[in-house]
Amino acid sequence: VTGSPSTPTVASLGERALIDRIRVLVGPPPPHVVIGIGHDAAVLRPDRGALTVLSTDSLIEDVHFRRAWTPPDAIGGKALAVNLSDLAATGATPRAALLSLALPPALPLSDFDEMIRGFLAAARVARVALIGGNISSSPGPLVIDTTVLGSGHPRKRLTRAGAKPGDELYLTGCVGGAAAGLAWLAAGRDAASATDEMRGAVERYARPEARWRCGSIVARTRSASAAIDLSDGLAEAARQLAEASGVGLELDASAIPVDPGMRFWAGQIGTDTLEAAVTGGEDYELLFAVPPRRRSRFLAAMRRCRDVPVTRVGIVSRPDAGEATWQRNGIVTPLPAGFRHLGG
Amino acid sequence: VTGSPSTPTVASLGERALIDRIRVLVGPPPPHVVIGIGHDAAVLRPDRGALTVLSTDSLIEDVHFRRAWTPPDAIGGKALAVNLSDLAATGATPRAALLSLALPPALPLSDFDEMIRGFLAAARVARVALIGGNISSSPGPLVIDTTVLGSGHPRKRLTRAGAKPGDELYLTGCVGGAAAGLAWLAAGRDAASATDEMRGAVERYARPEARWRCGSIVARTRSASAAIDLSDGLAEAARQLAEASGVGLELDASAIPVDPGMRFWAGQIGTDTLEAAVTGGEDYELLFAVPPRRRSRFLAAMRRCRDVPVTRVGIVSRPDAGEATWQRNGIVTPLPAGFRHLGG
Repeated sequence: VTGSPSTPTVASLGERALIDRIRVLVGPPPPHVVIGIGHDAAVLRPDRGALTVLSTDSLIEDVHFRRAWTPPDAIGGKALAVNLSDLAATGATPRAALLSLALPPALPLSDFDEMIRGFLAAARVARVALIGGNISSSPGPLVIDTTVLGSGHPRKRLTRAGAKPGDELYLTGCVGGAAAGLAWLAAGRDAASATDEMRGAVERYARPEARWRCGSIVARTRSASAAIDLSDGLAEAARQLAEASGVGLELDASAIPVDPGMRFWAGQIGTDTLEAAVTGGEDYELLFAVPPRRRSRFLAAMRRCRDVPVTRVGIVSRPDAGEATWQRNGIVTPLPAGFRHLGG
Repeated sequence: VTGSPSTPTVASLGERALIDRIRVLVGPPPPHVVIGIGHDAAVLRPDRGALTVLSTDSLIEDVHFRRAWTPPDAIGGKALAVNLSDLAATGATPRAALLSLALPPALPLSDFDEMIRGFLAAARVARVALIGGNISSSPGPLVIDTTVLGSGHPRKRLTRAGAKPGDELYLTGCVGGAAAGLAWLAAGRDAASATDEMRGAVERYARPEARWRCGSIVARTRSASAAIDLSDGLAEAARQLAEASGVGLELDASAIPVDPGMRFWAGQIGTDTLEAAVTGGEDYELLFAVPPRRRSRFLAAMRRCRDVPVTRVGIVSRPDAGEATWQRNGIVTPLPAGFRHLGG
């Protein structure tokens, strides 16, 4: 990953030339972008009647990723995905992104190009226009700071705060895959020795897909009372939803869909599969609270998010603030302590 | 600046507690902020009929600043100022900011607090609401990534691209102060030995004031044909304005207002004062091109930017692409090569 003396590096080009490389890859801007990449400031035409939704998140080398474990294009894609996941939880439709990079001077130019390609590939899928940003040199880690901007309808927004007793809890996808993939990489296992399940888990870690389409469709149909994304794991998300809504959440452990890679990995190291799955971070799934009278509307909305399975995993139980529990083998206990990013 | 073992550090608190500290300092949000700091995403109500203008810029320790040379509150204020300067050049009115921080774990909590206070003090003056952001740990330098959002009227925007032959060039403030202040600090001179001029220059380096009010007023009165900010120095700004507008720019060297600190410093080290002043970066002044028929309207607009002097420094000379020259002692030569940030 580090270049030999003859490998062209980002330092050999400088900021302006690097921005020009990005501009070529970005291509012509969509109609809502008045001024795009390469200017002092970007200019956007807001959606008529919509609110502007903004989120920012960074990926920092050796805190959120290691270059040895994640290919450059995956790092670029993930930098956007973690932001789109935050936006998804609000139901906003993503529109544009700004990318602020701090680059170690020795970063190979080919890694830079791959990272930008990965970012732009993810952006194309989500119809997000890269409209600007900033490139600096870093005396330390590679830092990728992304800001995404979306538009949300004033009365069709999702927050963490709307869940009511009696609501049902639905989860997109399955949990634990990213944590298992990270654990595999951290243990120094190589890809060639991986089973299919582990390869899938490593992919989930390296190339998460944010559920922005689900968030946007569910918000537009007004079929959920609250939503949160699973950046810090299902247990932590459940606690935060419970706290913000002032309710109790009760998950049914037997209903929680666990990633096959996590089943395999937990078996290998002899740990509790379900505990590892619900405390594992970086799944970037969505947890919705859905009033029973909206259930069929919600499930119809989810069918429009092709290929994203949804599972009922519990209920909003009581109007008590903050407690999130799970029922496991007939016994109700608090959910285990959640995952925290190294970053705090 | 580095804490003793007993000094509380940011690592002793963690992300959530640090965000809570910021939230307390921010206070209640203004009416256009629907969802502010402390949530998954921020939500803003756009200005009716306005465009959304966005800019992002970062300050990286040991690239853009040194903690030993700049007090924490000045670092915080400057992180916002460099972004407001980009916005000023577009004529947008600043409204909101996002702050993404990568913090070395050993950063003293008191430095963190001072940095945030400096940022928020600058934000209050510019009526910018801090609406969100992100805090991570950094294994290397302190990184402050700021995104600002402003609103601009569709037909009252400023760009670098509108200057026409015959336009007059006007400069806010004076140049060279920040470069002199930085040179003083880099030479290891202490504050006690500084003359008043040098103290002023060090202040200009550490605590720049972006000309967002001038940019916004001039844009609204439509009295300038083009504008650019001086983050990389006057010579570089003139070249970029000339290139973007496809014109030639000719500055009158005798008219360029030079910061007294730069006069003093250049005398001390025996360098060409004017060359040092026009190539010195980080002045964050604005350079405007003004059609002669709009001159009185422009000067009336500038009088509304209290305390900001404006000087006529040259003319847009020919419809040639890209050349920026200055006339000095009767001889016309290209402007000297400009300042580049260490960052690229």
